[in-house]
Amino acid sequence: MKLADHRAQTRAEFHERLKRIGAERYHDRHPFHKRLHGGQCSPDEVRAWVVNRWHYQSRIPMKDAAFLSRLEDPQLRRIWRHRIEDHDGGVDAGGGIRRWLALARAVGLDPDYVASGAGVMPATRFAVDAYVRFVRDMPLLDAVAASLTEMFAPKIHAERIEGLLKHYDFADDASLAYFRNRLTEAPKDVEFGLTYVLDHADTLEKQDAAAAALVFKTDVLWAQLDALWHGYVEGRLPPGAWRPGEGLLDSAIPEPARDAAAVP
Amino acid sequence: MKLADHRAQTRAEFHERLKRIGAERYHDRHPFHKRLHGGQCSPDEVRAWVVNRWHYQSRIPMKDAAFLSRLEDPQLRRIWRHRIEDHDGGVDAGGGIRRWLALARAVGLDPDYVASGAGVMPATRFAVDAYVRFVRDMPLLDAVAASLTEMFAPKIHAERIEGLLKHYDFADDASLAYFRNRLTEAPKDVEFGLTYVLDHADTLEKQDAAAAALVFKTDVLWAQLDALWHGYVEGRLPPGAWRPGEGLLDSAIPEPARDAAAVP
Repeated sequence: MKLADHRAQTRAEFHERLKRIGAERYHDRHPFHKRLHGGQCSPDEVRAWVVNRWHYQSRIPMKDAAFLSRLEDPQLRRIWRHRIEDHDGGVDAGGGIRRWLALARAVGLDPDYVASGAGVMPATRFAVDAYVRFVRDMPLLDAVAASLTEMFAPKIHAERIEGLLKHYDFADDASLAYFRNRLTEAPKDVEFGLTYVLDHADTLEKQDAAAAALVFKTDVLWAQLDALWHGYVEGRLPPGAWRPGEGLLDSAIPEPARDAAAVP
Repeated sequence: MKLADHRAQTRAEFHERLKRIGAERYHDRHPFHKRLHGGQCSPDEVRAWVVNRWHYQSRIPMKDAAFLSRLEDPQLRRIWRHRIEDHDGGVDAGGGIRRWLALARAVGLDPDYVASGAGVMPATRFAVDAYVRFVRDMPLLDAVAASLTEMFAPKIHAERIEGLLKHYDFADDASLAYFRNRLTEAPKDVEFGLTYVLDHADTLEKQDAAAAALVFKTDVLWAQLDALWHGYVEGRLPPGAWRPGEGLLDSAIPEPARDAAAVP
C-alpha cells in the first residue's frame, strides 16, 4: 500500500493554488494586452504582435506531438491527439494556425511572410522554444501542468474579441475566427488536463513541481509581450526583427510607396 | 544557384538501390517468418511473436509523434499525422494497435497482459526503442528513409494472411484485421515517403545516409525475429521474457490446469 503524503495540499487547496498563479501572473495582466484590447495599439504594433505570436501558434502542434511521443498509454494519446488536429487541421481545411494567417491577412500582412517565421524576434523564439523543450524533457505531470494556462485563456480571448471588434477596422468574424474557435476548444482541453494534474499530483513534491511548471508557462507568455513592448512600443528593435513596412500585402502598402517601389 | 552533385545517383538508380536493400535484408527472408507463415510454429511460438511484436506496434505511434514534433511545415505535419490516426484510431474505435490486441485474444492471450508490455524480451525493447530514438534524433531525411520498409510490407502481409489462414485455427477475418488494414494503409504512406526521400536525397552523401537508415531499419526488424528464434524456437529464454502459460485467457488454459489453479 502506498502511504498518503500528509504534507500534500488537498485537491481543492491545490486547485486554488493553480488558479491563483493565473490571477497573479497570466498575461492578461500585461500592459501590452491592455493596450491591444483597449485600442491604443498602432497598426504596426498589431502587426508586430501577429508576426511574433505566429511563432507560438506554429510551435503548439510540435509541442503537443512531442508530448504525444512520450505517452505509452494509447488511450491517453487518442485523447491528446485532438489538440494537434485543432491547431493543424486537415490537409485542405487547415486549423487554428491557418486561422491565425487569416488574421495576418486582415491586418495587411502577407500570410506567406508570416508563415516563414522571418522577422520573429529572438526573444520570442527563445521563450517559445523553451516551452517546447520543457514539454519534450520534463515529467509528464509537469508538461500537462504547463498547459493549464488554458484555464485562463477563455477570459482573455473573450476580452480580445470584444476589444478588437470595438477598436480596429480589421476585426470581424473572419479575422477573429482563431479566437472564437479557442473559446470552445480550450475548455475541453482544460477539463482533461486539470483532472490529470489534480489526480497525479498526489504528493507535496509533485504539487510544487506542477505549480512551478504553470509558473514557468506564464513566464513564457509574459516574456513574449515584454519583448514586443520593448521592441515596438519603445521602438528598440533587435537585429532581424520585423520592421514596419516589411512583409505587407500590396493592398496594405500606401499608394505613394507602392508607386515608388515599382520604379526599377 | 546550388550546384548539382555529379557524384549523386540518378533518381532511378537510387530507387533501385533502396529496393535492393529490401530484397536482401527485409525480414520476410527471416526463418522465423518462413516458419510462421508455413504453419510450423507451435501455438506458444505464435503467442511469443504476438507478445513481442506488440512492443513494436505500440511504439509506432510514439515514433510518428516524435517525427511530427520536429516538422516545422504545418502541411507536412497534416500529411504525416494520419499515420498516428491509423495506428491509434479514435477514443472509441481504436486503430491498428487495438486490432493487434484482437489477434492477441484470438491466440488465447489476455489483451490486457499483452498491452501491459510485460513479458516483452529485452532484445525486442532495445531494437524497437533504438528505432524511436533514431526518428527522434536523426535528420528528417534519414527518419523518413527508415520508414520505407513499408515498401516491402504489403508482400509480407499478403503472405502472412494466406499462410496463417491456411495453417492456424485462430486465423480469420477478425483476428487478421490488422494485416488486412495495413494492405491499404501502407501503400499511401510509402507513396509519400518514397517521393520525399527521392526528392530530398539530392547528393551522394544524403543518398548514402538514407540508404544506411533503411538498412538500420531492416536491422531493427530482423533483430526482433532473431531474439524470438533464440528464445522460443531454441528455448533459451532470457529473464523476464514471457513464458508459455503466462497471460492466457481462461478459455485458453487447458481444463486440468484450470481446475488445479482454482484450488486455493
